[in-house]
Amino acid sequence: MRSFHLEIRISPRPGLLNPEGNAVQHALESLGYDSVKDVRVGKTFYVQLSAADEDAARTLAEDMSRRLLANPVTEDFRIEVSELAEVPA
Amino acid sequence: MRSFHLEIRISPRPGLLNPEGNAVQHALESLGYDSVKDVRVGKTFYVQLSAADEDAARTLAEDMSRRLLANPVTEDFRIEVSELAEVPA
Repeated sequence: MRSFHLEIRISPRPGLLNPEGNAVQHALESLGYDSVKDVRVGKTFYVQLSAADEDAARTLAEDMSRRLLANPVTEDFRIEVSELAEVPA
Repeated sequence: MRSFHLEIRISPRPGLLNPEGNAVQHALESLGYDSVKDVRVGKTFYVQLSAADEDAARTLAEDMSRRLLANPVTEDFRIEVSELAEVPA
């Protein structure tokens, strides 16, 4: 098994209600940042896992995103996979 | 003024307690994903703002991150700036 690092980036779909982003925008405005036009907030999961190869790691990540990490109705996700170098003992 | 899109990525510093990541990891294990070794959770702010140029946009983003978006004790942040094309009327 090889070790992989995944970055799973979850972002809200455009056009949906965006309460968290609006709250952050208002907080920024109250600090004087009035050039801000729009704020949206997403999440990133940094995951380390073992898998046979990069394809298997990506398939696992897609599966986890659909089943748990992302809300398929309101969120999109994007996955980056990189292999972790083996550290010699 | 020109329009810029910022991606401000907030990630937890390594080595700190990580309750949210641990909760996600346990949830993944209970769904059968037992090859997962570590999970950390970060946030991304997608911000649109107007600024005189790219340097000004980046300076604003760093400032907002330090003052509001990131916790300087527990989190790191990284900023990507891209200019939004003007849409002809």
